[in-house]
Amino acid sequence: MALRGVLRLGEVSIRVLDMKAARQHYGTHMGLIETLVDEEGKVYYKCWDEHDHHCLVLREADSAGMDHFAFKVFDDQTLTELEGKLRAYGIEVEHIAAGVYPKSGRRLKFLLPTGHTMHLYAEKEQIGNTLGTRNPGVMPDEGVIRGFRINRIDHLLIGGDKIDENAKLFQEVFEFDMTERLEDVDTKASLSIFVSCSTKPHDIAFVVQPEPNRFHHVSFLLESVSDLVHAGDLIGKYRIPVEVNSNRHGITRGATIYFFDPSGNRNEVFTGGYVHYPDTPTLTWDTSELGAAAFSQDNTFRDSFFTVLT
Amino acid sequence: MALRGVLRLGEVSIRVLDMKAARQHYGTHMGLIETLVDEEGKVYYKCWDEHDHHCLVLREADSAGMDHFAFKVFDDQTLTELEGKLRAYGIEVEHIAAGVYPKSGRRLKFLLPTGHTMHLYAEKEQIGNTLGTRNPGVMPDEGVIRGFRINRIDHLLIGGDKIDENAKLFQEVFEFDMTERLEDVDTKASLSIFVSCSTKPHDIAFVVQPEPNRFHHVSFLLESVSDLVHAGDLIGKYRIPVEVNSNRHGITRGATIYFFDPSGNRNEVFTGGYVHYPDTPTLTWDTSELGAAAFSQDNTFRDSFFTVLT
Amino acid sequence: MALRGVLRLGEVSIRVLDMKAARQHYGTHMGLIETLVDEEGKVYYKCWDEHDHHCLVLREADSAGMDHFAFKVFDDQTLTELEGKLRAYGIEVEHIAAGVYPKSGRRLKFLLPTGHTMHLYAEKEQIGNTLGTRNPGVMPDEGVIRGFRINRIDHLLIGGDKIDENAKLFQEVFEFDMTERLEDVDTKASLSIFVSCSTKPHDIAFVVQPEPNRFHHVSFLLESVSDLVHAGDLIGKYRIPVEVNSNRHGITRGATIYFFDPSGNRNEVFTGGYVHYPDTPTLTWDTSELGAAAFSQDNTFRDSFFTVLT
Amino acid sequence: MALRGVLRLGEVSIRVLDMKAARQHYGTHMGLIETLVDEEGKVYYKCWDEHDHHCLVLREADSAGMDHFAFKVFDDQTLTELEGKLRAYGIEVEHIAAGVYPKSGRRLKFLLPTGHTMHLYAEKEQIGNTLGTRNPGVMPDEGVIRGFRINRIDHLLIGGDKIDENAKLFQEVFEFDMTERLEDVDTKASLSIFVSCSTKPHDIAFVVQPEPNRFHHVSFLLESVSDLVHAGDLIGKYRIPVEVNSNRHGITRGATIYFFDPSGNRNEVFTGGYVHYPDTPTLTWDTSELGAAAFSQDNTFRDSFFTVLT
Repeated sequence: MALRGVLRLGEVSIRVLDMKAARQHYGTHMGLIETLVDEEGKVYYKCWDEHDHHCLVLREADSAGMDHFAFKVFDDQTLTELEGKLRAYGIEVEHIAAGVYPKSGRRLKFLLPTGHTMHLYAEKEQIGNTLGTRNPGVMPDEGVIRGFRINRIDHLLIGGDKIDENAKLFQEVFEFDMTERLEDVDTKASLSIFVSCSTKPHDIAFVVQPEPNRFHHVSFLLESVSDLVHAGDLIGKYRIPVEVNSNRHGITRGATIYFFDPSGNRNEVFTGGYVHYPDTPTLTWDTSELGAAAFSQDNTFRDSFFTVLT
Repeated sequence: MALRGVLRLGEVSIRVLDMKAARQHYGTHMGLIETLVDEEGKVYYKCWDEHDHHCLVLREADSAGMDHFAFKVFDDQTLTELEGKLRAYGIEVEHIAAGVYPKSGRRLKFLLPTGHTMHLYAEKEQIGNTLGTRNPGVMPDEGVIRGFRINRIDHLLIGGDKIDENAKLFQEVFEFDMTERLEDVDTKASLSIFVSCSTKPHDIAFVVQPEPNRFHHVSFLLESVSDLVHAGDLIGKYRIPVEVNSNRHGITRGATIYFFDPSGNRNEVFTGGYVHYPDTPTLTWDTSELGAAAFSQDNTFRDSFFTVLT
Repeated sequence: MALRGVLRLGEVSIRVLDMKAARQHYGTHMGLIETLVDEEGKVYYKCWDEHDHHCLVLREADSAGMDHFAFKVFDDQTLTELEGKLRAYGIEVEHIAAGVYPKSGRRLKFLLPTGHTMHLYAEKEQIGNTLGTRNPGVMPDEGVIRGFRINRIDHLLIGGDKIDENAKLFQEVFEFDMTERLEDVDTKASLSIFVSCSTKPHDIAFVVQPEPNRFHHVSFLLESVSDLVHAGDLIGKYRIPVEVNSNRHGITRGATIYFFDPSGNRNEVFTGGYVHYPDTPTLTWDTSELGAAAFSQDNTFRDSFFTVLT
Repeated sequence: MALRGVLRLGEVSIRVLDMKAARQHYGTHMGLIETLVDEEGKVYYKCWDEHDHHCLVLREADSAGMDHFAFKVFDDQTLTELEGKLRAYGIEVEHIAAGVYPKSGRRLKFLLPTGHTMHLYAEKEQIGNTLGTRNPGVMPDEGVIRGFRINRIDHLLIGGDKIDENAKLFQEVFEFDMTERLEDVDTKASLSIFVSCSTKPHDIAFVVQPEPNRFHHVSFLLESVSDLVHAGDLIGKYRIPVEVNSNRHGITRGATIYFFDPSGNRNEVFTGGYVHYPDTPTLTWDTSELGAAAFSQDNTFRDSFFTVLT
């Protein structure tokens, strides 16, 4: 009990068109820490205050988008239990042996109703946050925190046609809470759904799309709005394409900047938002307040939010 | 799974010597929201971004200190399960009927090894954070957030002689993680222990004391270090006694101010700190780095931290 | 010497279409402090940390825009000297007796080359910032700082056809420094010019317009980007029309939000920017970097910046 | 007029006991930019957002303290005028030829009533802030802003027996404003006096001491309280001796940390404080509020503030 079961988003594997440009973006500019280039040329990154070996994987390919994402679970027994629950729910589950994915223990692999490939794993090599575990101190050496000053990977937004089914799966099998939901004011159809397995306002979210298996964005956690403004200054300096500069989401109450990597994959830096608990009421937004739901500082929806995905 | 079982610190019941002075402190100065004065004259407060009816209770008495604290659990079935686990562990459990404590469902009441009275409950009336649940917006009306701009109650530190036994109980029965531990560098005896049931670096902590049932402090969550400095300015304006002005804890990495209510009960405002997960390594500090463990910006321990409790 | 002569922007007098809506905007929402309603129904405001009686005057009229602006000078002798310099420069100067403008000493009134009416005055009644002058403390009572948490009026941007002549006048007669200048990359014509009489990156600026006597915006100073984000949240809450949400100017390096009052007059909240001294090199921008010059976080110019004035 | 005459503190020349340790402190840890080691082994630093070649000079010597400080004036003619005013006031003035001090034009050198050596100069080589002057952008390359993220040298506090005479000189000859003054509540004697030649709450200040020519501290400007907390974290990390951790001065309203270089010279990082103008009322504090005057967040004076100088 307490925090158990599915713990957190642990890995997002993204396709990029040009690895050199992608490394400049995620490494040099954003300041993520490169931890591995594997035999296939895939590049692995971690954020400074994470303990696991990596949270982001880049693979060069002919199209942008996401290969898979993975959540870490509490322990191996949880994996076993979740496999049973998935199968009982009607989901086909594939086994991936330990080591197939570098630094990773065995995995469960399956398709979501929205067509995305999801993994679950219980083990990944821990390399720490450079502070150590005995009298660790609070500040890493200079240079460890750099670029956008990103602390952690935070959450993921994916697009597809069956988002209600995704939400049902995450709630019933993984015991996530639905924190917020955006619906069409007339039809009551779900336009986006936000679910959490922690005290965050979302660990993953779903946005309705005509096609399955679309990638909307991966989000990285900053310490404060001061760091958000700092990241915004660097985004401008490096001429990174910006979709929405510093604003606040109505949904989640988090402060945000949306921008794109050189392949057109959307990224977000995010800070703040409320503290969620399972007894926090679910918040419902509708399209009569679409602007406020998306970007509450100017109450203006951006069409690209629903149309530009990879 | 996900976040289940014991959820969070939900209530701290404190004794104050002079209710008028206490109300000025917690209400007028700190800006907590008074939600009830009950028939016995006890005064109830909530923080603005909490949904439950109250998190702090003040009772006028001849001595300062804490009457009890309570954690909220996921649901009534969790209560039943935890009663079983507590009894199996050898803890005597008392039943308190719903309504005995205002706005509260039934409770379990028991003594910790350190002599403190702890409650568990699954239900408390929810009155919300003023934003509503349909197209809620992100900012309450002016005046709702005021004083120290406190978002939530955060955690509790209690003192007693058997803190290792407390930690064992919280880990084995409540499935908290031990996040950090401070030990005597020579004897290896535990001086303080920090445990978490969430992604916070602690939900409750224990500090060794020669006597049982001592109250060290209750802590309130702020949004940012900007708000911490603002709170510090108000603490100065209102001539509130300060034990440690703006600093950072080595343990938890949270930024902090310690100050006292008019009865001598210690309060803290707190912001930041790392994100904890069950797989985060436990951090161990020892007294060779006592200053850094306690206050990492000046590496200076304050003796009062171990000696002034109520 | 040191800081003498022309000191600062001391007054902006704006026309509004509906006084009730304007008071809600400037008073209730922004949090400026109303200090007077005069016999003609004009409403006067000050910012909390200013000592003078008012810095903003609203007059109900059939069209939006600015009636006049005024700079405060060091002393009455400075006024006399500046009158001589203005006349020698070829500017007609009109005398306004003390008291004609409420709370104000005598004034000089004249037209700028861009057709704007400017005043100079040396005296205005001081009512202080509520802290007093003996053991004043650092925090006013709660409620004095509210709304957008504005500290001071900061600067003014006005539009007209002869901005080079304005700049020459401010430099030669008032001894302002030209801090920055934006020019057409082909013709080298000035598009906007920024001048300072202090350590601020600008005290007033000029933007080229086909017609004279246009009002672009009045800007208010915030303490930090934390307060800028807070103001942005309130702007969103009150559904105030936003032209450009939180961004940074290339020119001045200040962080900014542009929004409109209910009459269509543009306002800005501003924080940061470099420290200017007379020996700081003048910075020159050209239209090859128009986006970066205007809004450096997304390198995107907004056409309305050159076309929407009152 | 506007900002003319004496502009700002431009140079502080400090004696250190061990140059290697001093370079680690001011360069590696604080992040000042080393611009020169001269033939005598003196080391020169600038802050990133200053344009002049250096603002801090370190000289290895047998005792800590300050050799001299220097203010920059508007132009060479100002130097000539000030020499006349100084001589008329009864101050002996020595000429130092251009080039005697590296990168510096000619100087005036003289003793203050408190026994300190002060220079005035109009020229120092400008090397810029790395941003350039054509389409300069707003963010230097990564690594230019590092360590404590210091923007500029800010002010100086010096100690001696004749501080009223210093204040009189600065007011009458240099036309500084007295912004604040701390007096003995009984005798009305001045304990410290703060004077400004800009919109800052002080450019230099004087504290009474039994002996002349004492150095209290040199202060460096940070952008925000977020950066102040960051500096505090680094001060803790590097085990730099702290006199007063993050607090706010009643006098000046600036947020502050006081710490010591390895030779025992006091440094400060400073941010905020009100905007001063010549018509801002002088604030008077007395020893009945000594704690609040010095450190307003805990209203506690530190004796070392009056007794530890170099």
